[in-house]
Amino acid sequence: MALNVYLSGEIHTDWREEIMAGAAGLDVTFTAPVTDHAASDDCGVAILGAEPNKVWHDHKGAKVNAIRTRKAIADADVVVVRFGEMYRQWNAAFDAGYAAALGKSLIVLHGADHAHALKEVDAAALAVAEEPRQVVEILRYVLTGALPG
Amino acid sequence: MALNVYLSGEIHTDWREEIMAGAAGLDVTFTAPVTDHAASDDCGVAILGAEPNKVWHDHKGAKVNAIRTRKAIADADVVVVRFGEMYRQWNAAFDAGYAAALGKSLIVLHGADHAHALKEVDAAALAVAEEPRQVVEILRYVLTGALPG
Amino acid sequence: MALNVYLSGEIHTDWREEIMAGAAGLDVTFTAPVTDHAASDDCGVAILGAEPNKVWHDHKGAKVNAIRTRKAIADADVVVVRFGEMYRQWNAAFDAGYAAALGKSLIVLHGADHAHALKEVDAAALAVAEEPRQVVEILRYVLTGALPG
Amino acid sequence: MALNVYLSGEIHTDWREEIMAGAAGLDVTFTAPVTDHAASDDCGVAILGAEPNKVWHDHKGAKVNAIRTRKAIADADVVVVRFGEMYRQWNAAFDAGYAAALGKSLIVLHGADHAHALKEVDAAALAVAEEPRQVVEILRYVLTGALPG
Amino acid sequence: MALNVYLSGEIHTDWREEIMAGAAGLDVTFTAPVTDHAASDDCGVAILGAEPNKVWHDHKGAKVNAIRTRKAIADADVVVVRFGEMYRQWNAAFDAGYAAALGKSLIVLHGADHAHALKEVDAAALAVAEEPRQVVEILRYVLTGALPG
Amino acid sequence: MALNVYLSGEIHTDWREEIMAGAAGLDVTFTAPVTDHAASDDCGVAILGAEPNKVWHDHKGAKVNAIRTRKAIADADVVVVRFGEMYRQWNAAFDAGYAAALGKSLIVLHGADHAHALKEVDAAALAVAEEPRQVVEILRYVLTGALPG
Amino acid sequence: MALNVYLSGEIHTDWREEIMAGAAGLDVTFTAPVTDHAASDDCGVAILGAEPNKVWHDHKGAKVNAIRTRKAIADADVVVVRFGEMYRQWNAAFDAGYAAALGKSLIVLHGADHAHALKEVDAAALAVAEEPRQVVEILRYVLTGALPG
Amino acid sequence: MALNVYLSGEIHTDWREEIMAGAAGLDVTFTAPVTDHAASDDCGVAILGAEPNKVWHDHKGAKVNAIRTRKAIADADVVVVRFGEMYRQWNAAFDAGYAAALGKSLIVLHGADHAHALKEVDAAALAVAEEPRQVVEILRYVLTGALPG
Repeated sequence: MALNVYLSGEIHTDWREEIMAGAAGLDVTFTAPVTDHAASDDCGVAILGAEPNKVWHDHKGAKVNAIRTRKAIADADVVVVRFGEMYRQWNAAFDAGYAAALGKSLIVLHGADHAHALKEVDAAALAVAEEPRQVVEILRYVLTGALPG
Repeated sequence: MALNVYLSGEIHTDWREEIMAGAAGLDVTFTAPVTDHAASDDCGVAILGAEPNKVWHDHKGAKVNAIRTRKAIADADVVVVRFGEMYRQWNAAFDAGYAAALGKSLIVLHGADHAHALKEVDAAALAVAEEPRQVVEILRYVLTGALPG
Repeated sequence: MALNVYLSGEIHTDWREEIMAGAAGLDVTFTAPVTDHAASDDCGVAILGAEPNKVWHDHKGAKVNAIRTRKAIADADVVVVRFGEMYRQWNAAFDAGYAAALGKSLIVLHGADHAHALKEVDAAALAVAEEPRQVVEILRYVLTGALPG
Repeated sequence: MALNVYLSGEIHTDWREEIMAGAAGLDVTFTAPVTDHAASDDCGVAILGAEPNKVWHDHKGAKVNAIRTRKAIADADVVVVRFGEMYRQWNAAFDAGYAAALGKSLIVLHGADHAHALKEVDAAALAVAEEPRQVVEILRYVLTGALPG
Repeated sequence: MALNVYLSGEIHTDWREEIMAGAAGLDVTFTAPVTDHAASDDCGVAILGAEPNKVWHDHKGAKVNAIRTRKAIADADVVVVRFGEMYRQWNAAFDAGYAAALGKSLIVLHGADHAHALKEVDAAALAVAEEPRQVVEILRYVLTGALPG
Repeated sequence: MALNVYLSGEIHTDWREEIMAGAAGLDVTFTAPVTDHAASDDCGVAILGAEPNKVWHDHKGAKVNAIRTRKAIADADVVVVRFGEMYRQWNAAFDAGYAAALGKSLIVLHGADHAHALKEVDAAALAVAEEPRQVVEILRYVLTGALPG
Repeated sequence: MALNVYLSGEIHTDWREEIMAGAAGLDVTFTAPVTDHAASDDCGVAILGAEPNKVWHDHKGAKVNAIRTRKAIADADVVVVRFGEMYRQWNAAFDAGYAAALGKSLIVLHGADHAHALKEVDAAALAVAEEPRQVVEILRYVLTGALPG
Repeated sequence: MALNVYLSGEIHTDWREEIMAGAAGLDVTFTAPVTDHAASDDCGVAILGAEPNKVWHDHKGAKVNAIRTRKAIADADVVVVRFGEMYRQWNAAFDAGYAAALGKSLIVLHGADHAHALKEVDAAALAVAEEPRQVVEILRYVLTGALPG
C-alpha cells in the first residue's frame, strides 16, 4: 500500500517539512498548495492580467490556485488540514469540508485551544492530532502497522 | 421550478429570518442548522450521556448535529453560507467546502472586509453578496426572472 | 411516467411556446433559462453591484443564471437544445455537452444547414429534429406510444 | 504532481504546438482530438463504409471521434478549450460543457472579442486566457509554484 | 414503501397485464417500453423523417425509444426482464445488463429451457421466476411481508 | 425537513415499535426488513420453488429479502442498526457497512457490553445509543431542535 | 493515449486473435472472458464443489466468471461486443448493456443480418462494424489519427 | 489483468498467509488490515493520547485503522472476507457490506456451520468458499482461466 497525502492549511510554519522529513522512507507521496504567500496571492493577475479591483485580483488568483488544490485533493487518500494560530484560515476549513464530502480520510491538526471552534471539522475526521509528529506516526502505522516507541 | 435552500453559518443575527421573510411567496423551502446555540452545543450529551472531557462532549454534539446538516445540504439546490463578524466560523467554511464538492450552487454572504480572507470560498461560489436582501433578489430572479426595482 | 424537459438555447423566436402549447395535456414539466435577454445580461450587476469592466459585468450575470440552469438541467429527464439562425450560441452547445455528460436524453433542434457544424452535438443526441412540432411528437410518443397522424 | 491536459477546440492554428513546446520540461501529458480535418471528417465512412447521405457520413465520423475525445476528457485533470476566429466551433463549447459537468478544471482560451458570447463558458472556467503562453504559465505555476518573469 | 417496477422484454404475450392485474392493490407503479411493435419500429422515421436505408430507419427508432426506456430504468427500483420463446430478444438482455450496472434489483422471468443460456443474466438477478404470478408474489412479499397461500 | 429512517437488525424484541411510537407526531417515515422470522427465512422457496439443499433455500430467500432491504437503505436518510443479545447478527453489521459506504447517517443501538466488539461499526456512526428512547430523542432534536426534558 | 479494450461475446471463432494481431504495435491492452467453453461452464463447481442441480452448477460458474468480466469491463475504455452466428448470446447483449450504463465506448461487431435484432444495442454504440479488421482500424485511428489505406 | 485483493476478517489463523503463498506467481496485490491485535486495539491512544474511558480508547483506534481499511477496500477489485470460529467478527461483516455497496467482487470464506447466519452476506458474494485453497483457485482461474487439477 502507498498513500497520497495532501497537506492543507497553515503556510507560515514548517509543519509540512516536519511531516515530510519524518515520513522519509515511507511509501507516501505528499502534495501541498503553493506555499509562497505572495505568489499564491498574485498568480492570477501575474499570468492573466492586472485587475484594479482587489476582489477580482483575488478571484483570479484563487481560481488558478484551485486548479492545483482540486487536483491534489482529488488524488489524495488522506487530507491533513492544519489550523495554526494566525489568520482566519477559512480556506483550510473549506478544504476540510471539500475533502470530507469526497470521502477522503481526514486528519485535522491543531492546538487544544481550537478544539471547540473546530468541533464540526474534527467530527468529520478520522484523527485529530496536535503535533506533526503524530501525523507521521499515523502514516507509519497505517502503512506498516508499527506503533511509536 | 422550486428551490431547496440551506442557510448555513452565523447564528447570532437574524439574517435567516430576513431572507425567509423577503422570500415569502416564492417557491422556496428553507432549511437551517439548529440555531439555538446552547441546544446545539449540548445535544450530544443531553441525549447520549454526559462526558467529563469537553472534547468528547463536543464530539458527540457535532455528530448529532451532522445528521441534520448533512441531510439539509444533500437535499439543497442552493447553499447560502453567511460569515458574520464574530467567532472563527470554521463550520461555515466547512459547509461551504462540503457543498462545493457536492456541486451545490453556493452563495456566500459576508461583509467587504472579509473578502480577502474568503477568496477561496468566494471563488467556488456562484454569487457573493453583502446583504440578505441580495440573496432574496437572487432567489426571486432565479425562480421568476424578475429583477429588483 | 412524467417527463421533466429543459428547453435550452435560442431565445429570439417562440419555439418554446410552440412546444409547450403542443404538449398541452401531456404529463410534462418544462423549464427554461430566463429568456428576457436584458434581464439575463444584467442580473448580476443589478443584484450584486455594478462593474466598470464588461467582463466582470458578464461574469456576475452568467453565474447568477447558472443557479437556474444547473438546477434545471440536473432535474431534467430530457434536454432540448435549440440552435437558431443568429448569434454564436456557445451557451447552447455548452448546455448540450453538460447534459450529455450527466447522461440526460438529448434532443437537438436545428435547421439542416447547421447539420455539419453540429455533428458532434448531434452524435450525442437521441433525436435530431428540425421543427418544434417534432419535439412535441417525440414527447407524446415517449409518454403515450402514440405516433403522429 | 503530474497533470493530464486535454487541448480541445480550434484545429487551424498551431496553438497546441505552442503550448506543448512551452511546457517542455514540465510533468504534463497532453492529449488532443485528431487535428487532421479531412481524416476527422471522413473517419467514419473510411472505416465503416460509405454513406450517400451526408448527415450519416458525419454521424459515423463524429461517433468514432468521440471514442478518442471522451477517453481524453475522462482522463484529463485540466481541459483547455480554444475558440478561434473561424467556424461555429460548437464542438469546442460542447467539450467545455462536458468537461464542466465532470468537474474538470477548465481553462478557456479566446480573444477579447469573444468574451461576451462566451460568458457562460468562461463562468464555468478556472482561468480565461487570451494567449497560449498564458496557459503554459498556468501549468508551470500549478506544478511548480513559479510565476512568469 | 412503494415500488417503481419496469417491465422489460417480450412484447407478444400478455405477461405484463397478468402482473399488473395481480398486483392490483399494491403500492407499485409499473412502466414498460412501447409494446405496439409497429409503432416501436417506426417511431423514428414517422416523427423525424423517412430513411431509405433500413439500418438508419431502425437507428432513429431505437434512439427515440431509448428516451423512454432509459427514463423508466433510471426511475425503477425493480427491473423485471421477461425472455419469451420467440426472437433474439437481445434488447431484453441489454436492458438487464444496463439495469445491473445501475444497481437495480433485477428479476428475470423465463422458462426452464432458457436457464443455461441465461446463466450470466440470472447470476446478476435477485430472483429468477418462471411465471408472472411469482413476480406478483415477490412484489407482495417485498411490500407487505405476506407469503402466498 | 422530513426524515426517512430504516430500522435494521434485531427482530426479536419490540425496539422498532418503541421508536415508532415515540416518534409519533414527527415527520418521519420508517421502513424495516420483514420481521416475521419464518416468512423471512422461507420467502425464496415459498415463491420460487423448493430447494433440497438448505444453502440454496437460504440463498433464494436472502436475495428476495434484499429487494426490500436495498430499496429501504437506498431511500433512507438515517439507518438505525440494532444489535441485540442473541444470534450472530452479521446481517445487521452488513447493513451498517452497506449504509456507511453509501454515506447514510448511521445510528447504532446496542448495550454497553457490545461496545468493544462493535468499535469499528460505532466509529462509522454519527450516534451510538443504548436505548430506543435515545433514538427517538435524536430524531426529535434533528427535526425540531428540541432536547429531551 | 493508451486504450484498454475488452473483447466480449462470441467464443467459437478467432475474431479476438484477429483483432489482437492486427493491433500489434498499438498501445492497447486487451482483456477477454475465459474463452475455454468447458472451463467457463464448470469453473464454479470445479473450485467450489459439485451441484446436483444444473441451475446451481451454472449459477456458481457464472458468478466466478463475473469476477473477471466485471473487472475487465470496469477497467476498459472501449468494450467490443461480437455477436456471431450461433447460440443465443444473451451474455454478450448483457455485457453491452452493462458497459453502456457505465458510459464505456461501445463497438458492436456483427453481420448485416443481425442489424434489425440488434438495433437497440447498436443505438448505444459509437461504432457498428462487420469485420474484426474494422475494429483494428478504429483503434488505430483513435490512437494515431491514421486512416486505413 | 492484475488483481488487487483485500483480505478482511479473522486475524487469529494464518489463512492470509496460506492464500498469499498459494497465489505466488499470480499477478495479485494483497492488502490486509493490521493483524497485530494489540497494535490494532491501541493505535489510537498510542499515537493520539490516552483515554480513561475504554469507549473512546476504542473509538480513536477504530478510526485510525479505518484510514487503512477504507483505502484498501477502495483500491480493491476483490474483497475476501473470512469468518472464523471465534469472536463476534462484526467488523468483518461490516467490511463485507461496505464492499458490496461499492460494487466490489466479494468472496466470503467460512465453514459450513456459519452458512445460515451468513446467508445475507453470502447472497451479496460472487463466491462462497470454505478453504483458503479455493480462494487461490478462484484467483488463478480469474487471471489465467486455469482450473485446479
